[in-house]
Amino acid sequence: MLVVMKPQASEDDIRRVCEKIESMGFRPHPIPGAQRTAIGITGNPGSLPPEEFEALPGVAEAIPVSKPYKLVSREVKAEDSRVRVGPPGRETVVGGPELAIIAGPCAVESREQVFLAAQRVRQAGARLFRGGAFKPRTSPYSFQGLGEEGLKLLAEVRQEFGLAIVSETIDPENCDLVEPYVDVLQIGARNMQNFSLLKRAGRARKPVLLKRGLSATLEEFLMAAEYILSEGNYNVILCERGVRTFTDHTRNTLDLSVIPAVKTLSHLPIIVDPSHGTGKRDKVLPMARAAVAAGADGLMIEVHPDADRAKSDGFQSLYPDQFEALMAEVRAIARVLGRTVGDN
Amino acid sequence: MLVVMKPQASEDDIRRVCEKIESMGFRPHPIPGAQRTAIGITGNPGSLPPEEFEALPGVAEAIPVSKPYKLVSREVKAEDSRVRVGPPGRETVVGGPELAIIAGPCAVESREQVFLAAQRVRQAGARLFRGGAFKPRTSPYSFQGLGEEGLKLLAEVRQEFGLAIVSETIDPENCDLVEPYVDVLQIGARNMQNFSLLKRAGRARKPVLLKRGLSATLEEFLMAAEYILSEGNYNVILCERGVRTFTDHTRNTLDLSVIPAVKTLSHLPIIVDPSHGTGKRDKVLPMARAAVAAGADGLMIEVHPDADRAKSDGFQSLYPDQFEALMAEVRAIARVLGRTVGDN
Amino acid sequence: MLVVMKPQASEDDIRRVCEKIESMGFRPHPIPGAQRTAIGITGNPGSLPPEEFEALPGVAEAIPVSKPYKLVSREVKAEDSRVRVGPPGRETVVGGPELAIIAGPCAVESREQVFLAAQRVRQAGARLFRGGAFKPRTSPYSFQGLGEEGLKLLAEVRQEFGLAIVSETIDPENCDLVEPYVDVLQIGARNMQNFSLLKRAGRARKPVLLKRGLSATLEEFLMAAEYILSEGNYNVILCERGVRTFTDHTRNTLDLSVIPAVKTLSHLPIIVDPSHGTGKRDKVLPMARAAVAAGADGLMIEVHPDADRAKSDGFQSLYPDQFEALMAEVRAIARVLGRTVGDN
Amino acid sequence: MLVVMKPQASEDDIRRVCEKIESMGFRPHPIPGAQRTAIGITGNPGSLPPEEFEALPGVAEAIPVSKPYKLVSREVKAEDSRVRVGPPGRETVVGGPELAIIAGPCAVESREQVFLAAQRVRQAGARLFRGGAFKPRTSPYSFQGLGEEGLKLLAEVRQEFGLAIVSETIDPENCDLVEPYVDVLQIGARNMQNFSLLKRAGRARKPVLLKRGLSATLEEFLMAAEYILSEGNYNVILCERGVRTFTDHTRNTLDLSVIPAVKTLSHLPIIVDPSHGTGKRDKVLPMARAAVAAGADGLMIEVHPDADRAKSDGFQSLYPDQFEALMAEVRAIARVLGRTVGDN
Repeated sequence: MLVVMKPQASEDDIRRVCEKIESMGFRPHPIPGAQRTAIGITGNPGSLPPEEFEALPGVAEAIPVSKPYKLVSREVKAEDSRVRVGPPGRETVVGGPELAIIAGPCAVESREQVFLAAQRVRQAGARLFRGGAFKPRTSPYSFQGLGEEGLKLLAEVRQEFGLAIVSETIDPENCDLVEPYVDVLQIGARNMQNFSLLKRAGRARKPVLLKRGLSATLEEFLMAAEYILSEGNYNVILCERGVRTFTDHTRNTLDLSVIPAVKTLSHLPIIVDPSHGTGKRDKVLPMARAAVAAGADGLMIEVHPDADRAKSDGFQSLYPDQFEALMAEVRAIARVLGRTVGDN
Repeated sequence: MLVVMKPQASEDDIRRVCEKIESMGFRPHPIPGAQRTAIGITGNPGSLPPEEFEALPGVAEAIPVSKPYKLVSREVKAEDSRVRVGPPGRETVVGGPELAIIAGPCAVESREQVFLAAQRVRQAGARLFRGGAFKPRTSPYSFQGLGEEGLKLLAEVRQEFGLAIVSETIDPENCDLVEPYVDVLQIGARNMQNFSLLKRAGRARKPVLLKRGLSATLEEFLMAAEYILSEGNYNVILCERGVRTFTDHTRNTLDLSVIPAVKTLSHLPIIVDPSHGTGKRDKVLPMARAAVAAGADGLMIEVHPDADRAKSDGFQSLYPDQFEALMAEVRAIARVLGRTVGDN
Repeated sequence: MLVVMKPQASEDDIRRVCEKIESMGFRPHPIPGAQRTAIGITGNPGSLPPEEFEALPGVAEAIPVSKPYKLVSREVKAEDSRVRVGPPGRETVVGGPELAIIAGPCAVESREQVFLAAQRVRQAGARLFRGGAFKPRTSPYSFQGLGEEGLKLLAEVRQEFGLAIVSETIDPENCDLVEPYVDVLQIGARNMQNFSLLKRAGRARKPVLLKRGLSATLEEFLMAAEYILSEGNYNVILCERGVRTFTDHTRNTLDLSVIPAVKTLSHLPIIVDPSHGTGKRDKVLPMARAAVAAGADGLMIEVHPDADRAKSDGFQSLYPDQFEALMAEVRAIARVLGRTVGDN
Repeated sequence: MLVVMKPQASEDDIRRVCEKIESMGFRPHPIPGAQRTAIGITGNPGSLPPEEFEALPGVAEAIPVSKPYKLVSREVKAEDSRVRVGPPGRETVVGGPELAIIAGPCAVESREQVFLAAQRVRQAGARLFRGGAFKPRTSPYSFQGLGEEGLKLLAEVRQEFGLAIVSETIDPENCDLVEPYVDVLQIGARNMQNFSLLKRAGRARKPVLLKRGLSATLEEFLMAAEYILSEGNYNVILCERGVRTFTDHTRNTLDLSVIPAVKTLSHLPIIVDPSHGTGKRDKVLPMARAAVAAGADGLMIEVHPDADRAKSDGFQSLYPDQFEALMAEVRAIARVLGRTVGDN
């Protein structure tokens, strides 16, 4: 059920609808739009009688929502969502005209490594820095990240370079540790349906970058985001990073058609990670261009100052020079679509 | 690295090798076999010099292990593992000549429901009872299970019917709650690479039923099991439950060829869940027969006393009568392979 | 549209309905059943008025067919089809209680090879012999088969061993050459949607073995068979041989659940090729057992007297001894399902 | 084996090498490059002694080719191939700086339809016109195309609008009929491994547009092209049109990463068909932009003057207005990559 308020509805009208919903034992989600506010209802086992809400002052109509997802849907919010990232005053907006460029190494390895990487990606125009401190690895014997030490290095990067920090959290308890250090909590592809983690992220006060699972349908992807929104955190950035198919010429198959498909169904911004999406350094640049041309709201790119000696995923990381070249080409493509890319 | 002891090696010899490994900062995993004990080493960043171990008394040889998985591999343990389930004295063995039949409803809904189901599946010869108290659901608005109340009902089922209990755990913290109530901790397909949960399950004192992820390769599946073993819990039962492909005539594609593939590479038992593997009631019986014919060590079957009114997955649950028919056919197939199925 | 005749309808009644259909410019397909005859209509652009047929003598009812396939569907013919293979008097029936076992080398290489193989598979109980004379190969530089010389050797095998011959045809023109030599025309997976070849096979006077395409849905598979039936050849045997998925532990993923799915929708027999379905010799036996347990009407198995030196697909061919062992196990599984396997 | 000539090698030197190859019973394929000519050898069962060729005048070196494909590979020809399409004097070049835009209806339905479509796509800048006269359809009861009548209409279109004609051929015999009418022979996805048709197309005197099969790996795709080249027709244009995966938000999954992958391995041009690649009208524009941004050499777009009433695939066809908008956006993206798109 979605309660759509009239354009002239007052704050009091909205509050009254929310109280009504709560009195029925459900949860109201007021979502302000450019023209009018809509209020999503979650927690109701089935459909509710529209009349009960349409009788309240300021209500335009009450619409039963047919899709399995509610809060992420365009039905609930027609305008594109803009997710504000970083400390007030130094915010970056994801989902606006400027593309969000997130760059940095796969894993945080050392101060020297992250500082070198941060300096170069900052210079090339990135506003967000990525680096894993907790790494979900297929093998228990692979490098699992520096842990909290890595988070501290990331905090230093923010301090030194003014970059917003994106880093992965791997379980609900770990989220308590990671959240204070970062600007965006990343949830990895293998955890896309880790519902305990999604719920915890829904109670976080930081935006969440949600990566698509390796075999997730679009509906499952949106429903995973819905978990986060349904807990009250509306600042979700979707990320396509390739799906698993029969093909073997790239590590995953980057499904760029999901971008226009998301844009049709949802108001959430979506970015693309061509580094994991291809798994091969020489495919990152053309697929970054393609992602932007398809309408992505940003890119997530692995950049390593010494890619050949990276502790993980080095073969798909760009050298800083390659990243600079990528930024130049992406900037030109973005311009065609009426969008911009930050410069140094 | 795998240290293989001589058949006549003493307990002292084995202890001495373990101490040597610990003194190097690594972790020893002594794995007794029918003929001889092998000691796996985990935690070492690269290969170790074999001579250091071959010089110790009782050591036959030290073999560098080429596969990415160690403890789950046949190289480390040539004999099939048998996982003992249930309280001492009333144990069921998974991986021995008798097939492990796990049956019950998708989700615990009420005492009446589980008691009715338990009575019927017990009568038909099942020794293990399944039922979800915590349900990972694609939608945050779907029934998420009865929680601890459900676990208590399952404990009553064990008490009343002597069935060992299999139930799902969904995150590390939840594991603390579930473990005392159940005989087998189940990890669902969507959590197969939830490494925090795998590590926690590796420290549990109950066996773990690990379901294959929807797009997991065999190597990833075995590596997920390796996470559990590497923490010290060697009682892992693998479960094939269908993978995601382009086909649409079943909900998932049951990949029965993974059974002989697992048997070649690993000593762990593997069972099959044709209920989720097909998602359609009328496909469960033929695929259950096929799974046993392919060499599965058991089956996991959804049975609901009132399948059409089930709160989840009713369309793939068998009626008790159908389950009895299934048991009769499976028993006959099992006999051809020199195996047995429990009777009432 | 399907015109169902009354049980007591005469030959004249049936003929009159057919003439009516032809006079409308469409094509009648009378399909005799145990109880009554049904007459399928093809060639009609849309739905026809049932009354026009129901007014004719002997007609029980005229049913608009909802599925995209007509002639292959159970709606048109409720009883399982039995396909008679081989010369009158020495026929083998596919789809009856006895399983059809087709065995032999991937490609015909020499008289010595096929005679040796034929002798052994005949001895083990196979009634049909396979061998490719025209091989569709991924590379233009791979061995493409002996051509007509190979067909002549196959004809000698039939003469000498009384085995019915199954061999592949690769295009419409080639069909003219192959048809006289063989008892069953095989259409390979890569040609499943070669509609020109399907139409030509539909005009052949020999039964057709149609292999499922690598990424064919069940509907596409049945529609490919429909092409053959719609041209007048109702003797079609379906063959599951594995589909292409992300998995890498077998060459293809054998989708055994397609067997019960076909049985629900269609009256056509379906067999399984575990040699191509797994691509690995040691997986053939367990998957052959599983296929029969799932309800397959037969098996197609690659057997080569000198598998390691085979010119194609040797790694998935069984040695004759292994084939004998397979037959013994399959025979025992078949017995459980009330079916038989020929003996020597 | 690949024989690389010295830059200064004479025509006589080249002829002598070819004669040598023929005298050994193999087939020479001289491939002129910007700097030097290379001569591929096909038909040889295994590797040949390099010395035999290196001793001949004008030979720089003889290199054993490691890849399964030879003539399509960059090893054989380093420069991008340019395929000349259309009658001499009015040629269009595919693979050069100008993108090849092929547009038109899925199927030829009437003179009015193709003339209307041709006028509009010509006006918008397309130089090639597509339209199927022989349609491979999943169902035998679907519209199969106008046949030769359709080809005649296409010939009129060429005459009237100066557009080069691209149309599909469905079997070797049909190729005899289609070839004289068209400028480019199209081979559809379902026929990508119809080796008889590939060989026939290899003997055609018109360029061939080869569509990637629904589950074809890159190697299989290139090997299919190799079939055509190995028969002497080097004018092959590859076309990505989406592959089959588990996703359901588009009809197929457009695999744009195959573009840079092809460019690395092969000298052949590759274009993209976003109409079939997405199967949805509103996804065609963004994916067309993305394809060009990824480096495609052209696009194939379904345009129908009355898309809603199209006899096949109307839901994925653009209206002429939408095609004009697409051309404008694609032109701007092309410019960023230093390429052009024809104007009206």
